[in-house]
Amino acid sequence: MCGIVIGMSSSTPTTPSRPSSTPLSSTPRSTLTRKKERASGDRADLHSVLDAGLLCHVAVVSGGSPVCVPTGYGRDGDTLYLHGSTGSGNVRAASSGVDICVTVTILDGIVYARSLNNHTFNYRCAMIHGRARTLTGDDERDHALHVISEHLAPGSWDYARRPSAKELAGVTVLALDLEEASVKLRDDDPGEQPEDVDRDDVWAGVIGVRTVFDPPTSAAYVPADVKAPPHVTTRTP
Amino acid sequence: MCGIVIGMSSSTPTTPSRPSSTPLSSTPRSTLTRKKERASGDRADLHSVLDAGLLCHVAVVSGGSPVCVPTGYGRDGDTLYLHGSTGSGNVRAASSGVDICVTVTILDGIVYARSLNNHTFNYRCAMIHGRARTLTGDDERDHALHVISEHLAPGSWDYARRPSAKELAGVTVLALDLEEASVKLRDDDPGEQPEDVDRDDVWAGVIGVRTVFDPPTSAAYVPADVKAPPHVTTRTP
Repeated sequence: MCGIVIGMSSSTPTTPSRPSSTPLSSTPRSTLTRKKERASGDRADLHSVLDAGLLCHVAVVSGGSPVCVPTGYGRDGDTLYLHGSTGSGNVRAASSGVDICVTVTILDGIVYARSLNNHTFNYRCAMIHGRARTLTGDDERDHALHVISEHLAPGSWDYARRPSAKELAGVTVLALDLEEASVKLRDDDPGEQPEDVDRDDVWAGVIGVRTVFDPPTSAAYVPADVKAPPHVTTRTP
Repeated sequence: MCGIVIGMSSSTPTTPSRPSSTPLSSTPRSTLTRKKERASGDRADLHSVLDAGLLCHVAVVSGGSPVCVPTGYGRDGDTLYLHGSTGSGNVRAASSGVDICVTVTILDGIVYARSLNNHTFNYRCAMIHGRARTLTGDDERDHALHVISEHLAPGSWDYARRPSAKELAGVTVLALDLEEASVKLRDDDPGEQPEDVDRDDVWAGVIGVRTVFDPPTSAAYVPADVKAPPHVTTRTP
């Protein structure tokens, strides 16, 4: 299957824990077997894709069957943080020490070729394999939730009410090392087959795809004179 | 984990094969155990989410581990079609008669609450469980590829060169019945906890998230006087 998904970026501040030029791993499951020219072995690209996405899809095996769930996340250095309700079966599965797969895909364009077979997407896709670690220490959990919060809603950590002890008790926080990962990128003109090269009357090209944020709308229960704070009004994709 | 992803829609014409008011299934794995108020049991919602997304994430189990891959798709009635290279290990896994999970997530908004714990996303998410059927008949494969093509690039089927026999030989085409599926939707103000209700000085609200298409750009090899055709220039998300 070809890789693809929808564009959107955020601006989580991160502190790489190692030089970003470190190459990615090359285990069998993180090594592309097709379209190898689209693979990036550069850790900086992995970080860039993860920082540009807003949500990931987490795949776990539950009862022998795969389940693929969208969720928020955050990155600090070479650690990806996830969180979820302690009552969620998928969270329980992901936190049970078994392999999970986390995929972040950003769609950048729809690629119209002269042949249908060469139609594709421009995209950035990061895939991470590994076993998540359930965080138990208060400081580590607090740090992880801070990172996730800053990724999803930068500024809210210092503006909104922090989680209470009761709320924290209902949250499972997971850490996944970015050790075994792959990145696949496409940002190019449509490919051509030899039989299409001379078909100069047929158009080919790309529709760029972008995500935009609308101006914030206040909740119905917020008084009219309470305006959205700057960390919300100035947010851009 | 909460459900979320990025907005984008397309306008694939579809022909529902049954009344769209048919309820969805209620097997254990397609029944929500959390946030049940966000579940939709209406098949029309399932169709709507699938038609509004541009790509899905397909989860398969490969070598005992989950793998989650983004890819294009198309829907006709209550059948979802997928395709991929015969050389892809993930396609081979998905076509081997084992369970797969297909998830389409559309992100509609970032929800800023007065408490961090109530921050979330507005989104539409469809999840389908089942075993895909590998299509072998020429007519059925042709129909499925037509449906996928019209979903990803409406109009290209009648404009671009159709796949050659050689190209078709390299493509695996899969059909997945929309029998066992769930839909989860959130489109609402931020939730509030009792301790936050009186905090009238704190803002809460939603940043709407939308996908936009940029004007098409021609491939470098297309002559300057060959303009993008109407099915491209008039396309909207």
